[in-house]
Amino acid sequence: MAKAPRTAIQPTRAEDYPEWYQQVIRSADLAESSPVRGCMVIKPWGYRLWENMQRALDDMFKATGHQNAYFPLFIPMSYLEKEAEHVEGFAKECAVVTHHRLEPDPEGGLRPAGPLEEPLIVRPTSETIIGATYAKWVQSHRDLPILINQWANVVRWEMRTRMFLRTAEFLWQEGHTVHATSEEAIAETDQMINVYADFAENWMAMPVVIGSKTPAERFPGAVETLTIEAMMQDRKALQAGTSHFLGQNFSKAQEIMFQAENGERQYAWTTSWGVSTRLVGALIMTHSDDDGLVLPPRLAPEQVVILPIYRDDSQRAEVLEYVEALRSELESTQFAGDKVRVAIDDRDVRGGEKKWHHVKRGVPIRLEVGPKDIEKNSVFMGRRDQPKSIGMARNDFVGNVGDILQEMQQSLFDKALKLRVDNTRDIFNESDFRDFFSTTDEASAHGGFANCYFADEMAIEPLLKELKVTIRCIPLKDNEEPGVCFFTGRPAQKRAVFAKAY
Amino acid sequence: MAKAPRTAIQPTRAEDYPEWYQQVIRSADLAESSPVRGCMVIKPWGYRLWENMQRALDDMFKATGHQNAYFPLFIPMSYLEKEAEHVEGFAKECAVVTHHRLEPDPEGGLRPAGPLEEPLIVRPTSETIIGATYAKWVQSHRDLPILINQWANVVRWEMRTRMFLRTAEFLWQEGHTVHATSEEAIAETDQMINVYADFAENWMAMPVVIGSKTPAERFPGAVETLTIEAMMQDRKALQAGTSHFLGQNFSKAQEIMFQAENGERQYAWTTSWGVSTRLVGALIMTHSDDDGLVLPPRLAPEQVVILPIYRDDSQRAEVLEYVEALRSELESTQFAGDKVRVAIDDRDVRGGEKKWHHVKRGVPIRLEVGPKDIEKNSVFMGRRDQPKSIGMARNDFVGNVGDILQEMQQSLFDKALKLRVDNTRDIFNESDFRDFFSTTDEASAHGGFANCYFADEMAIEPLLKELKVTIRCIPLKDNEEPGVCFFTGRPAQKRAVFAKAY
Repeated sequence: MAKAPRTAIQPTRAEDYPEWYQQVIRSADLAESSPVRGCMVIKPWGYRLWENMQRALDDMFKATGHQNAYFPLFIPMSYLEKEAEHVEGFAKECAVVTHHRLEPDPEGGLRPAGPLEEPLIVRPTSETIIGATYAKWVQSHRDLPILINQWANVVRWEMRTRMFLRTAEFLWQEGHTVHATSEEAIAETDQMINVYADFAENWMAMPVVIGSKTPAERFPGAVETLTIEAMMQDRKALQAGTSHFLGQNFSKAQEIMFQAENGERQYAWTTSWGVSTRLVGALIMTHSDDDGLVLPPRLAPEQVVILPIYRDDSQRAEVLEYVEALRSELESTQFAGDKVRVAIDDRDVRGGEKKWHHVKRGVPIRLEVGPKDIEKNSVFMGRRDQPKSIGMARNDFVGNVGDILQEMQQSLFDKALKLRVDNTRDIFNESDFRDFFSTTDEASAHGGFANCYFADEMAIEPLLKELKVTIRCIPLKDNEEPGVCFFTGRPAQKRAVFAKAY
Repeated sequence: MAKAPRTAIQPTRAEDYPEWYQQVIRSADLAESSPVRGCMVIKPWGYRLWENMQRALDDMFKATGHQNAYFPLFIPMSYLEKEAEHVEGFAKECAVVTHHRLEPDPEGGLRPAGPLEEPLIVRPTSETIIGATYAKWVQSHRDLPILINQWANVVRWEMRTRMFLRTAEFLWQEGHTVHATSEEAIAETDQMINVYADFAENWMAMPVVIGSKTPAERFPGAVETLTIEAMMQDRKALQAGTSHFLGQNFSKAQEIMFQAENGERQYAWTTSWGVSTRLVGALIMTHSDDDGLVLPPRLAPEQVVILPIYRDDSQRAEVLEYVEALRSELESTQFAGDKVRVAIDDRDVRGGEKKWHHVKRGVPIRLEVGPKDIEKNSVFMGRRDQPKSIGMARNDFVGNVGDILQEMQQSLFDKALKLRVDNTRDIFNESDFRDFFSTTDEASAHGGFANCYFADEMAIEPLLKELKVTIRCIPLKDNEEPGVCFFTGRPAQKRAVFAKAY
C-alpha cells in the first residue's frame, strides 16, 4: 500500500478535524490560549487578518451611513434586568465586577476590597447600556435615525471554549440603530445582513445562506433575528453574523421615546447587528487544507511573499537588489482597488523551512527568486491553492498579479460553494433525515445542510436533540412555495436549513 | 463700560477654565458622561478624532517595526502581585471580577453567583499578562526583539474623574517590547518617546518637553520613565505620553529568559509605552477658544465644511450642484499626504445656527456658498483660528487649500509654543518659586513651567505639596550644565520642569 504523502498539518482533516483546526491555528501563528481561562492571545498574524476584516467592514458600515462611537465596558446589574428575555439569555454566563480595589489578605497575598453598591457586568453585548444613552439622545423625530456602530471587546463566560469560535472574551463590532418606524428598522436589519453576506462572499470567499432564525434560536429580546450561515469543510454549519430587529422591546425597557411629527410621544424601533473574531475561525475552516491556513487574497496581510535564494554574499547582494526592484514594481500594481501587499522574507532560515513557513501561514502567492531566475528574467511561483509551483516570465507575473489573485479569490469561493452544494439535500421524511445526520465518521463529516419543510418547531425538538441537529435558518430566498412537514406530515409554509453546527 | 462680545462657550476660559472645558466638550458633541460611574460615552465626532489619532500613531508604530496583537482583558490577581511596586501602584484602584454569573436573589432582582477560584482584575495596564505570554515566546536570542503594540481599553478606578483626562475606563495603546540587551531596550524607550513627541507636535500641533521622570513619579516597576509634557492654556502641565524602560524587573517577575549566543540563560530587558484618549483632552485644552473646539487640520475629521446658502428650491438645485462639484475638486487636492476631507452641510437649519454648529465643533475651514458667490465665482471662507471670514476667488481657494490648512496647522503650533515660552521661567530661589506658583486667579492661571536646578527630591517635597506643584520631568535637552539647587542651595546636576498639573 502506498504511503500517504506527509502533510504539514498533523492530523489531517480526515483524521481529526477539531484537532486539525487547532494545529492550523498553531502553525500559522494566529493565536494561542492564554493563562486566563477561556481567553486567547491573538498573535500578530491573526491580528493583521482581523484588522483587514475590520477595515473592509468599517468602510461598508460608513458607506451605509453609520458612524462609530464608544460606550462603557460595564453595565450596571439593574440594566440587564430591564428586558426579561435578555437577562435570561445572558445572566448565566457573565463576568461580574463586585469590588474596586485589592487589599492585603491577613493570610497572605491580596483580596478584593471596596465592595460596589451595585455589581457591574462586563458587557456581553451592549443593547442595555447603549439604549439608556439613546433614551437621552432621542427626543424628537428629528433626532432619528441614529446609526451607530461600536468596535469593542465583550465577555461571555462560556464553559467550553475553542479559539476564535467561542472564547470568553472576544472582539467584535455591534451596530445599534434607532428608527421612527417599524418599516425603517426592518429595512436596516435587512440591509445589514446583506452587508455581512457581501463581506462573507466577496472578501472571505465564503458562501452563505441568508435566513431568519426560528423563535427558539433568536437573540434574547429580538422580534426577528436574521443570520448568515456557512458550511465548514466538516459539513457543520457556522453562524457567521446576525442582524436583529428588536421591535420596541428595548425601547420600552429603556424608555427610548420620541415626539412624532403629529406631536404624539411614541416608542422608537431599534436594531442591533454584529460580527466577531469568530469570522477568523470561519475563514480558517472554510479554506484551509492539510498543509495549513489558506487565505483569500483580499484579506491576506501579505498577498505575495518573495523568497530570495542565494548561495553566498555576492549572490545575495545581486538577488536582494533584484527582489527589492520586483517588490516596488508589484506594489505599483493593484488588486481589488488596493495596491498589492508584498513582503520579502530574507531571514536566515533553510529554504524548505522558509517555504513551508509561508505555506502554513496561508500567503496566497510565493515567489522564489534566485540567480538562475534573474538570468532568465523569470520567477518561480507557488499559488497556495494549487499543488505545483510554476515558472513564469517576470513581466507576465507583474502584469497579471492582480488577475492571478482574483482568480484565486474566485476559485476559493467556487470550491467552498461546491462543497456546500454537494452536501445539501432536500429531505422530505424522518427516515432520510435520520440517515443524513447519522454518520459514523464523526471527525470529518456531519451530514451537511438538509432543506426541509417543517410545521412546528416544538414538535421536532426531541428529534433534533437526539441527532444533535439544529434549525440554522429559514432562508429568505426561494422560499415562497408551501410544502409538507418532513416530520409531522402536516402542511408547512416554509423550508428551513437543518444542520449540526458550531 | 463696553459689554464684552458674547462667546459661544459660557463660561469663558478666563471666567472658569474647568467648566469651560466641560462646555467645549458638550457643545462640540465629543463625549458625555455615562450611567456608569467614571465611564464616558465617546460620541461620533469625538470618536472620529480618536480614530484619526489612532491611524497616525499606528502608521508610526508600524514604520518603526512594531506589530499589533491582542491580549486578555483580565489579569489573574496573583499575576499583579509578582512585581512589588507594580501591585502597590495599581491595587488601590482596580475593577475586580469575583463571579461568573447572576442568579435570582430571593429578595428580588439578581445577585452575583458562581464565585471564581481566583479573582480577576480588569487590566489597568498589561505588563503582567503580556509578560507571562512573552515568557513562553522567548527561548533564544533569535526570538528577540519582540516589538508588539496593543490597542485596548483599560480600567483604573479613579475616584475623581474628568472627561478624557481621567476616566475609570479609557482607550489607549500599550507597546510592550523585549530585548536581548539593556542598550537596545533603552534605545527603544527613547525611540518611542520621540515618536510621541513627533505626533504631539506635528499632528496635534502641541509643543512638548521631553524629559525623564524623577523616581517618585515613575511608572510602578520602571527603572526609567520618559515623558512628554505639554502646557495647557491655564498654564498647567499635562503628561501626554510615557515610555518606560523596565530593566529586568518584569522579566524577573515573569521569568522572561533567553539563551544568549554564548549559551548562557539570561533575563531579557523590557519596555512599555502608551498614550490614551487623554490626548483628546490635551488637544482640546491646547487649542480651543471661547467659541469652542479648535481642531488642528491634520487630525480634523472634516477639514472643510461647505455651507450651501439659498432661498428657494430653484436656488437650492443650482447651489447644490455647484457645491458638489466644488467638493469633488477639493477632494482631488492633497494636504499632508492625504486627500482633503470635505463635508457639505445641507441640513434644514438656520444659517447662523449652522455656522456656529461647525465653529463649536472646530472644523478648520467653513465655506459659505450662495447664488452671489456662484455669480462671482467666489467663496466666503472662515478659518477657525481667525476672527473674520473673507471672500476669495474659488480657484484661488481650490488651488491653495492645502497651503491654507498647513498655515493653520503651523499657526496653532506657534501660538501654543508662544504661550509656553511666555509662561516658562528660570527660577533660582524659593521666594521667586513661591511667587510664581501663588496666583490669586486660580481659574485661569497656575504660574506656568518653572525651570529649576534641584538636588534632592525628598527635601523639596513639603514645599511642592504646599504649593500643589509637581516635578514634571528632567528635560533631556540642554541639560548638561550643573547648577545650584533653588531650595537647598546645594550643587545640583540637573534642571527640572516644575508645574501644577492635570
